Amino acid sequence: MILIGELLNSTRRRVREAIDARDAAFVQDLARRQAEAGVAYIDVNTGALIDRELPAMEWLIETVRAATDRPLAIDSPSPEVLRRGLELAGPGTLVNSISAERARLEAVLPLLIEHQAPVIALGMDDDGIPDRAARGFDVLERLVETLEHEGVLRAHIFADPLVRPVGANTAVTGEVLEVIGRLHLAYPDIHISGGVSNVSHGLPCRRLLNRTFLAMGMTRGLDAAIVDPLDERLMSEIAAAALLLGRDEYAMNYIGLFRAGRLEEKP
Amino acid sequence: MILIGELLNSTRRRVREAIDARDAAFVQDLARRQAEAGVAYIDVNTGALIDRELPAMEWLIETVRAATDRPLAIDSPSPEVLRRGLELAGPGTLVNSISAERARLEAVLPLLIEHQAPVIALGMDDDGIPDRAARGFDVLERLVETLEHEGVLRAHIFADPLVRPVGANTAVTGEVLEVIGRLHLAYPDIHISGGVSNVSHGLPCRRLLNRTFLAMGMTRGLDAAIVDPLDERLMSEIAAAALLLGRDEYAMNYIGLFRAGRLEEKP
Repeated sequence: MILIGELLNSTRRRVREAIDARDAAFVQDLARRQAEAGVAYIDVNTGALIDRELPAMEWLIETVRAATDRPLAIDSPSPEVLRRGLELAGPGTLVNSISAERARLEAVLPLLIEHQAPVIALGMDDDGIPDRAARGFDVLERLVETLEHEGVLRAHIFADPLVRPVGANTAVTGEVLEVIGRLHLAYPDIHISGGVSNVSHGLPCRRLLNRTFLAMGMTRGLDAAIVDPLDERLMSEIAAAALLLGRDEYAMNYIGLFRAGRLEEKP
Repeated sequence: MILIGELLNSTRRRVREAIDARDAAFVQDLARRQAEAGVAYIDVNTGALIDRELPAMEWLIETVRAATDRPLAIDSPSPEVLRRGLELAGPGTLVNSISAERARLEAVLPLLIEHQAPVIALGMDDDGIPDRAARGFDVLERLVETLEHEGVLRAHIFADPLVRPVGANTAVTGEVLEVIGRLHLAYPDIHISGGVSNVSHGLPCRRLLNRTFLAMGMTRGLDAAIVDPLDERLMSEIAAAALLLGRDEYAMNYIGLFRAGRLEEKP
């Protein structure tokens, strides 16, 4: 699994305050702990700092960069913030995100080509976010084809079917799983990613739903996810699911985590 | 999910001793607790009591019957034990199991017809247990077709692709999941069941693997399982997976379990 650490997100109050206060120690600690937990990318988001997103992003990137060389995911709907983020963060940076909305597509695509950057491609267009699997698949199929036609490598595409709260619509998660399954069969060489924590919004025992959904998604073809990598039960369930899907030869990773005391299991 | 409680199994030392000692209190407590946990069937197995399986089964059935009227699953490879079990346990009893092995098929099939009994149909034949999904599916497809042709209702068939230890062969669980997915698409009106605990045999943190596998199987079409229903984390993960698959309208079951303190989630 390709994990994208979600914790440096300005929609989290403590993180927003730290960014506003330019509290480098707090930010660097969260960055280091996510890197140590094994994420492939550290997401950085300053979107909640209205009217000061860009300078906040510049500080955040430079602050995280001083703590770890783990690649970043620049998380913004603003092409200007994405452009500056790509310049500062360097090669290998993930763009979070593009979509099939015409204006966003036209503004972000040139950045991807210029920087040869991997990108999270959201399954939404100017008609909104599809509830049903059939249209959810169609929107992503067109977006993948467009990106590829414009020169983005398939291996750089992280298709994201937009995980939504199951508590608001109990039918939608099954549709998202169906989109994942269909995409994986149609495009086995792209990545499929999702913002797992969204699934549990508004419900109790959120982490139980998050980790269960992640294992279910992996079963259908999800191979990347935006997660809290400090959630030990989530990380344990990912290790278990990877083993069960035949991606852990001789169970070496699973047993290694157990020996390191990192597989939680109390009676 | 249709759960079959696995705890009254004579391969478990404490249960074997209780059956041998005719310890009704112990057996009835385990039966009641499984019924209260919500199983649809209570599995009863006396196979480990060599040369005295039949009288042990007679006592076990009558003892459990005195404690709960929850339907039983008679768990034996012996047609004689299955026949006596069906007579004693009454209508609605599940036969565990039949397979595509010729001798077993010919001996057990008449019992199913006579009692109109539901049955676990194991995906193995006289060539053994298939490792690869293609043959695993073929064996079960032929078995389902045979059972239906002989008069067994599709709704009475619990196809079981034989869950095996991932620690012994890390490729086999993915194949089993593939058989589940293919069966569910080809025969949406049969049940698909599995002995979930087998998956973790020989590995640490067995319950983590068991519950992760169960959620993964449900994603592909597993709708029944032989489990330890007293494993609270397993039961929580089943509730989470059912909600995520759209089988819990308004999340009423999930939230009800939470309010009853039965969804485990410590920080």
